[in-house]
Amino acid sequence: MKKQRIAIDMDDVMADANGRFREILLDRLRVDCTEHLLMPEFSWQRAFPEHYQTIHSWTYESGFFAGMKVMPDAQEVIQKLMEKYEIFVVSAAVEFPLSMQEKVEWLKIHFPFIDWRFLVFCGHKYMIKADYLIDDHLKNIAAFTEGTPLLFTAAHNRHIEGYTRVNNWREVEQLLL
Amino acid sequence: MKKQRIAIDMDDVMADANGRFREILLDRLRVDCTEHLLMPEFSWQRAFPEHYQTIHSWTYESGFFAGMKVMPDAQEVIQKLMEKYEIFVVSAAVEFPLSMQEKVEWLKIHFPFIDWRFLVFCGHKYMIKADYLIDDHLKNIAAFTEGTPLLFTAAHNRHIEGYTRVNNWREVEQLLL
Repeated sequence: MKKQRIAIDMDDVMADANGRFREILLDRLRVDCTEHLLMPEFSWQRAFPEHYQTIHSWTYESGFFAGMKVMPDAQEVIQKLMEKYEIFVVSAAVEFPLSMQEKVEWLKIHFPFIDWRFLVFCGHKYMIKADYLIDDHLKNIAAFTEGTPLLFTAAHNRHIEGYTRVNNWREVEQLLL
Repeated sequence: MKKQRIAIDMDDVMADANGRFREILLDRLRVDCTEHLLMPEFSWQRAFPEHYQTIHSWTYESGFFAGMKVMPDAQEVIQKLMEKYEIFVVSAAVEFPLSMQEKVEWLKIHFPFIDWRFLVFCGHKYMIKADYLIDDHLKNIAAFTEGTPLLFTAAHNRHIEGYTRVNNWREVEQLLL
């Protein structure tokens, strides 16, 4: 039987993007944003309007993506998922052209069991044919109408309702395995 | 009514990749490969076994993709197609991570009417949901089973049979418009 396919987003799903911002914010601006990340309807823009331009500019810096930590249990659970499902990593990275090379490298280092042929960089994600999409962004989840979208909890999406939510990789494991 | 979607490959479909190789071959190795490109079942490896390692290494050089010429009539026909179809540019560029930034730039320069959100870098292409795929590589054409594949003629695919073939962008225009 043909395996079902899961499309998995990278930032804030496989890689701790918000954690990377928090780390640099503390390091460069001496701001501890642990509490801010618990704000309802959190966004970096809403939490730090005065620093937003600066924070946003970090995403264009060399090393920003390379330095991201792996989300807890992502490696183990994704490797298990691969026994039962076909996995594609789908990242909206074309917006940040410099990041793509770093993301290829990051995946090689942290997920060496995922072949580069299963990595997709795009803008829109609605043209990806998959049975599941695991993503933290409402726009991707809402546009994914031909499969089952799973909203991966992140500081910026806790307020969103109406979608199946997974709070961490253990919950993905429970749901799909 | 929802527009039908066309996925369009970049190298040797929108951008003259073989022409770029020809140009560098002449420039650096003083070899004119015009006749070689007419060989049946042409490949760079078969035509130039003694230079193949060198030729292949050019694809990893900065500037290789940036210097590609636009295929004749591609701009005009793709712009016309966009009135009737939704266009995604789908390039298997993840194999050449350095090329992706150049390809984003190349597209901005030569196809400024295509938004970055409609650019996809991948390995496999069979998970792209589209009504048509225009591509020069048999592996992509053969795996595209849920839509209509159109084999775009290139030196390396003239021997392939069994698929609808388009020899140039004017033929695409005739077929789809």
